[in-house]
Amino acid sequence: MLTPFRMDTNSLYLTEQLNLLGVDVIFKSIVGDDRRRLVAAAQHGLFRSDILIFSGGLGPTEDDLTREAVAEALGLSLRRDPEILARLEKRFAERGWKMSANNAKQADVLEGASVLPNPNGTAPGQWLSGEFDGREHTIVLLPGPPHEMKALFEAEVRERLRAKVPPAFLAVRTLKIAMLGESAVDARVAPIYKRYTDVETTILAGAGEIELHFKNIAATVDAAQRRVDEVAGVVEDELDDAVYSRNGESLEQIVGYWLQMRDATVAVAESCTGGLLAERITSIGGSSRYFLGGAVVYSNALKTELAGVPAEMIERHGAVSREVAAALAEGIRYRCESTLGVGITGVAGPTGGTPEKPVGLVFHAVATTTGTEVVQRNFPGDRKRIRRFASTMAMDMVRKKLM
Amino acid sequence: MLTPFRMDTNSLYLTEQLNLLGVDVIFKSIVGDDRRRLVAAAQHGLFRSDILIFSGGLGPTEDDLTREAVAEALGLSLRRDPEILARLEKRFAERGWKMSANNAKQADVLEGASVLPNPNGTAPGQWLSGEFDGREHTIVLLPGPPHEMKALFEAEVRERLRAKVPPAFLAVRTLKIAMLGESAVDARVAPIYKRYTDVETTILAGAGEIELHFKNIAATVDAAQRRVDEVAGVVEDELDDAVYSRNGESLEQIVGYWLQMRDATVAVAESCTGGLLAERITSIGGSSRYFLGGAVVYSNALKTELAGVPAEMIERHGAVSREVAAALAEGIRYRCESTLGVGITGVAGPTGGTPEKPVGLVFHAVATTTGTEVVQRNFPGDRKRIRRFASTMAMDMVRKKLM
Repeated sequence: MLTPFRMDTNSLYLTEQLNLLGVDVIFKSIVGDDRRRLVAAAQHGLFRSDILIFSGGLGPTEDDLTREAVAEALGLSLRRDPEILARLEKRFAERGWKMSANNAKQADVLEGASVLPNPNGTAPGQWLSGEFDGREHTIVLLPGPPHEMKALFEAEVRERLRAKVPPAFLAVRTLKIAMLGESAVDARVAPIYKRYTDVETTILAGAGEIELHFKNIAATVDAAQRRVDEVAGVVEDELDDAVYSRNGESLEQIVGYWLQMRDATVAVAESCTGGLLAERITSIGGSSRYFLGGAVVYSNALKTELAGVPAEMIERHGAVSREVAAALAEGIRYRCESTLGVGITGVAGPTGGTPEKPVGLVFHAVATTTGTEVVQRNFPGDRKRIRRFASTMAMDMVRKKLM
Repeated sequence: MLTPFRMDTNSLYLTEQLNLLGVDVIFKSIVGDDRRRLVAAAQHGLFRSDILIFSGGLGPTEDDLTREAVAEALGLSLRRDPEILARLEKRFAERGWKMSANNAKQADVLEGASVLPNPNGTAPGQWLSGEFDGREHTIVLLPGPPHEMKALFEAEVRERLRAKVPPAFLAVRTLKIAMLGESAVDARVAPIYKRYTDVETTILAGAGEIELHFKNIAATVDAAQRRVDEVAGVVEDELDDAVYSRNGESLEQIVGYWLQMRDATVAVAESCTGGLLAERITSIGGSSRYFLGGAVVYSNALKTELAGVPAEMIERHGAVSREVAAALAEGIRYRCESTLGVGITGVAGPTGGTPEKPVGLVFHAVATTTGTEVVQRNFPGDRKRIRRFASTMAMDMVRKKLM
């Protein structure tokens, strides 16, 4: 984390999880792979906090120093656990590899610590509760790779921590909104959330999506939940059908939910989004129940060949046009025999824009039994943002058709 | 930064900038808006480092405590600067607003500090050089919003820092490797990079991709560059064609580069990756020169309809099979008249696995004039990782066909 390259997503996840347990995060330190500095950070943390969570530095390389540094800071020894060692050797053998000697250090466990199995990686986590520096402390070692860390936290750490901390009840609600601007949303909802001073409201804006987070801490679960539900409800009334999600679900999940509710299927024909729309819809497990398939039609020939857009239509109106978007949606719907067909064509940039058809211009079409709707938008930003906007817009159109 | 929502991009930027000046970042702390903790963090930093950079907490609200905390930690007083105050009042007046009283604290300057103008915001930065705790220190206060912080750093801080630090020149090189495991790569290259003790080597692992970063600081640019080039060269010889990128380019860029070099085009037919391969290839601007299009064929009917896979082949071997992967690649190549065709079929999970065809099993095929290559893999991890692995594998196969 001390390179310019890596985003620190682990600490965001841990902060969220700790907040949900009623625990405030007061300090984060990012320390390089240097034993002396790691020891100093651990000692400083012991002095300052009741719960210390370390993430990373549990691997097999020489730079993986967390176990040694924490042991030194706590004045504990490390014991090599024969069970972990056996499991490591088995893991390597199953893959037909020989385990190199450096891997053995992953079996080193802090004196008195419980081993937390890591099904997604070689290095297990560790949990240690006891008196250090004259005070009760809980020390947790977690692996660094986010998918290993999260799975381990959920399976092994969350409930152990809950048992350690005084019961405080945090309730959160998230509303998600598509295709409205941040300042437009804020102007409409600020008068509402300012009335609820005990509920903390945060607005986060992404490309085409806005999240409103409501948070309240109270003496009982019910009291906390009642407060966030009340403010979320009033905000939702104000924003009406622009709110696509009430409980944190993603737009991809919501589109899948509505397609299944309506016993409908969808197929897509994408040009400028290049597969992003299909990728987002199919990011949901079980999406094969409602997503049949689609075509990514960059070249004009393929718009005709795979999605049945008449070549003379492209000739007359251009590939980026209201007509071609509609023909893509209708063509792929016919071809795939799906309930809905989606077509996207536009200019994602950075090149390819013209004065009449600038970078950011996108046509989105949704075809159903009753006809085809086309929406034109001019999106700001770079290629990545434009593609993200366009795929969000298309999914939001599908959602509104099904509601 | 102590909420679950915000990414810490400022510290990545500052780390990169400091590295370029030959300055190592040894520690980062993220502290909440609490005066006592901020003072403790500042004191700890003074003890530990020669240069301290604070970002954020310079605004007008009660939570903006950086000036007060740093003054307390250094034992300095704050003086209210009349020039800054006048500028603030003018800024508000220009917008037709009356300045509220709390804004005045943004004019508080550490005794002896220089004011660094902030053209993008209200709170100026501060620069203070002097002896504290018996040692020469440089203390910099920067605003928190990334665009204000960066502009101010570039205009006011970089050259001042350069004059403070011993002239040192940092050279970096990055090698990227696809489809080898982290421990396998480390086992092969550790004996090499351990010989070059003056070059710092870091290994970063993602799903199917590994980055090796080499860093050297020397008295001249040439000397530093020579050292990183030398170790990178030896490592590259060892890893041979597993290295896809020598200068930081992404796999998507490299695939595009080789396709253009060979005057070749590609089309894809994806099942379990659901559009991710097309999306990744088309994430590159100008990819329409070599990417024609593709089909996302979730349903068996569409594998036949869009990619020409014989229905009886799917019946006999199953949709997830070596034969169907090859037929997808060959079918889409024929259909799109591309130089290369890529087919992917597999089980991304979480459901749909069987004992013979478990979650993670993926067949990747690349069809060319000279024949079709199929590679079978069993990927670990969840749906997202399996899809990422599979699309990386397919791109790496395309790259190797073109090299």
